[in-house]
Amino acid sequence: MQNKHTIAAIATGEGGAIAVIRVSGPEAVSICDGLFLGVNGRELHDQPGYTLLYGTIEPTEGEIVDDVLVSVFRAPHSFTGEDMVEISCHGSRYIQQEILRLLVERGAAAAQPGEFTLRAFLNGKMDLAQAEAVADLIASDNRGAHDLAIRQIRGGYSEEFRRLRAELIDLAALLELELDFGEEDVRFADRSQIQALMERLSVRIGKLKDSYAWGNVIKNGIPVAIVGSPNVGKSTLLNALLQEDKALVSDIPGTTRDVIEDVITIHGVQFRFIDTAGIRYTDDTLEAMGIERTRKRTTTASVILFVAEATETAQDIESKLKSIDWQPRQHTLVILNKSEIDPPVAQRLQRELQQMLDIPIFPVSAKTGQGLEALTGYLYTLAGTAPDHAEVVVTNARHYEALSEAYRAIEQAKSALEKQLSSDLLAEDLRHVIHQVGTITGDAPTTEDVLGAIFNRFCIGK
Amino acid sequence: MQNKHTIAAIATGEGGAIAVIRVSGPEAVSICDGLFLGVNGRELHDQPGYTLLYGTIEPTEGEIVDDVLVSVFRAPHSFTGEDMVEISCHGSRYIQQEILRLLVERGAAAAQPGEFTLRAFLNGKMDLAQAEAVADLIASDNRGAHDLAIRQIRGGYSEEFRRLRAELIDLAALLELELDFGEEDVRFADRSQIQALMERLSVRIGKLKDSYAWGNVIKNGIPVAIVGSPNVGKSTLLNALLQEDKALVSDIPGTTRDVIEDVITIHGVQFRFIDTAGIRYTDDTLEAMGIERTRKRTTTASVILFVAEATETAQDIESKLKSIDWQPRQHTLVILNKSEIDPPVAQRLQRELQQMLDIPIFPVSAKTGQGLEALTGYLYTLAGTAPDHAEVVVTNARHYEALSEAYRAIEQAKSALEKQLSSDLLAEDLRHVIHQVGTITGDAPTTEDVLGAIFNRFCIGK
Repeated sequence: MQNKHTIAAIATGEGGAIAVIRVSGPEAVSICDGLFLGVNGRELHDQPGYTLLYGTIEPTEGEIVDDVLVSVFRAPHSFTGEDMVEISCHGSRYIQQEILRLLVERGAAAAQPGEFTLRAFLNGKMDLAQAEAVADLIASDNRGAHDLAIRQIRGGYSEEFRRLRAELIDLAALLELELDFGEEDVRFADRSQIQALMERLSVRIGKLKDSYAWGNVIKNGIPVAIVGSPNVGKSTLLNALLQEDKALVSDIPGTTRDVIEDVITIHGVQFRFIDTAGIRYTDDTLEAMGIERTRKRTTTASVILFVAEATETAQDIESKLKSIDWQPRQHTLVILNKSEIDPPVAQRLQRELQQMLDIPIFPVSAKTGQGLEALTGYLYTLAGTAPDHAEVVVTNARHYEALSEAYRAIEQAKSALEKQLSSDLLAEDLRHVIHQVGTITGDAPTTEDVLGAIFNRFCIGK
Repeated sequence: MQNKHTIAAIATGEGGAIAVIRVSGPEAVSICDGLFLGVNGRELHDQPGYTLLYGTIEPTEGEIVDDVLVSVFRAPHSFTGEDMVEISCHGSRYIQQEILRLLVERGAAAAQPGEFTLRAFLNGKMDLAQAEAVADLIASDNRGAHDLAIRQIRGGYSEEFRRLRAELIDLAALLELELDFGEEDVRFADRSQIQALMERLSVRIGKLKDSYAWGNVIKNGIPVAIVGSPNVGKSTLLNALLQEDKALVSDIPGTTRDVIEDVITIHGVQFRFIDTAGIRYTDDTLEAMGIERTRKRTTTASVILFVAEATETAQDIESKLKSIDWQPRQHTLVILNKSEIDPPVAQRLQRELQQMLDIPIFPVSAKTGQGLEALTGYLYTLAGTAPDHAEVVVTNARHYEALSEAYRAIEQAKSALEKQLSSDLLAEDLRHVIHQVGTITGDAPTTEDVLGAIFNRFCIGK
């Protein structure tokens, strides 16, 4: 617990009109007061929390760094639970760095990644799952990921794990009573009641664990590779899919400032198209040198769209497909493009291929858009089954690992109970389950190492 | 004047922990009230200016987009002079776009580039020169550019032009009186007094105009290209120069998040090294195919550092230098690198070259750092002479054009006075001078076109 010192960091991204510098800790107000000259001589230390002041950052009189708006928050009513100051300045790189430099000069430490959120956790403003969701929320770039993150921040998620943990603790108490002390006289009814309870909890933990498959899809999207011979229309297909998606997104000028990769979103699930640049853009393909590069790039995809022309023969398509070593876990779809050229031929080819291959075949026309809806509809089903809106979905790999471990341990406890093994073993398994479930919210003791691993993944300023 | 509607924009850069969305206009508060749910049911329309509220963006109950901090400003006490709301949310791309979408859905217009600052100007919160300095301030990435921009924002700059304009108007009035009405009886004393006054103002306008050379250097830096044969140590030299510079910059972790180009700053003047990638990194040089590319890249440089080895012959260096067609306006420096290998030979070579060529020769050792200080000292002199701290420096191309035009017209007026030409011509020239000087601060009427040209260069959110 090192929240004795005051930390500072730039909390906004680069290149904006304005920027915000956050300061948190016992000296936040006094350090900022040394730099800030409020209009009408107002000073920060006189202000209550939730005050907004206008003035200048002016470390020595007349040497103005910037006109700023300063927000003052008082412990415990702030994000971190400590005294906080937020300085809203112009977005100049020089100004931001100069203000940060002046803060450091006056005793603030440059914040470590995630240190503001870590302090919020250490000061009891949020539990561990909520703190982790802050990073997820900031990273969320689609509605699905956002909704899961906000639910986790708002506490519904943690509540589920707290309830589960409480029930596990009750079970442990019951076990102790029935098995330990009443050893010579365990009634069958009690045993079967305990067994049923354990079974129920095991099912719940299993379900939570399994929700990660969907949670991961929502959070990280599904990587897709488009492969195929030159000129079969791979880039046209991708553009047609992107076009279809873009038509659904209301286009407010100035909202999208950069695009990282090609993504289509189907009912909230993102399909991220892997840049198989060598294939897609230069149309240098499965033959010759291209083949190795293609293999490497496509191994990370969960879905492979193999594009052929609807005018090719089934044998040709089959032999091309065979020349690629698909990963067993990958979904492969064959796309028969240019099906508008000769629709009956395309249909016949589809039937023929369906008899030869055990993979879905989609005749489409990237040019006219025909068949694309069926394709995107199928892609969506690959994401798995969406759980009910109200259900808790695990998106965090750490939580998934804890749940997997808890599930293993409760299954072990179940079998120990069935086999009437020593109650010591049973109790130990159950303690392990309780511990694992507790680590999710931080109710179980959390080591510095675990905290470090969690918050180092954050950005500076969070 | 279209400030009837309410505008909204994301004002911070991408990729931060938090983001700020600005809303300005008559409906700013009511539009935001429709989205915002304050803690304890507090609503924005009840709040006075400079209020900070915590709550959620929750367009329909239970559908939380984000936890936010909202600042309320009341006209005229805001940046734009209108009612304003600033929503501080998490830096998620989805959240930012969703909030902006909700604002637009409820009647806000997505702001045009510079529209907030344009409104500040139209509402009399700042003059035109101040408004332009907002963009300069945000773009400033070094102390020199920052100091000029902040001075322009704080009004000292505009004051200078207002004083100048007032004196020009006085002169015009004096002229009218002496030359127009007293035509038949102009006394020599008055004429020479007017001449002296005009001369003085012409000198001032000329000086302001000429300050742009320095202002431009401070604002945009000096582009430098490093060229030379392979293996003469071009990249080592650049690294040594960068190293020298970096040693002077206090290194706060997390402050520099990306670097756009290689820049060294000497006494506040930035020297921007043009990426002559083909030359510098692959060491594919002046010979063969490289030559054309090198030429193209180096034509934009103001300074060319031609690097040779101190062990080469003067004739070799001269012939290599001749093979490049330098631009007449470019400063060329010959760097004799690796001078540590044989210092007497390097000295002799320097003397020899100095007799053959009319350009400065610098023996250096990129390896040991010897000679670098002399080189950077000389580079600094190329920036020109820094004016006094208190002097007004013009950094804006539009202002420079206005001053050039004003200077031309006042020189014309001077000669009209000397030649005793018609006072109508004189008066017209002087009116032109007054108009041009007035356009700088916006005291002269400014057309929509001019405003458009100025503010379109801004980013959205400014």
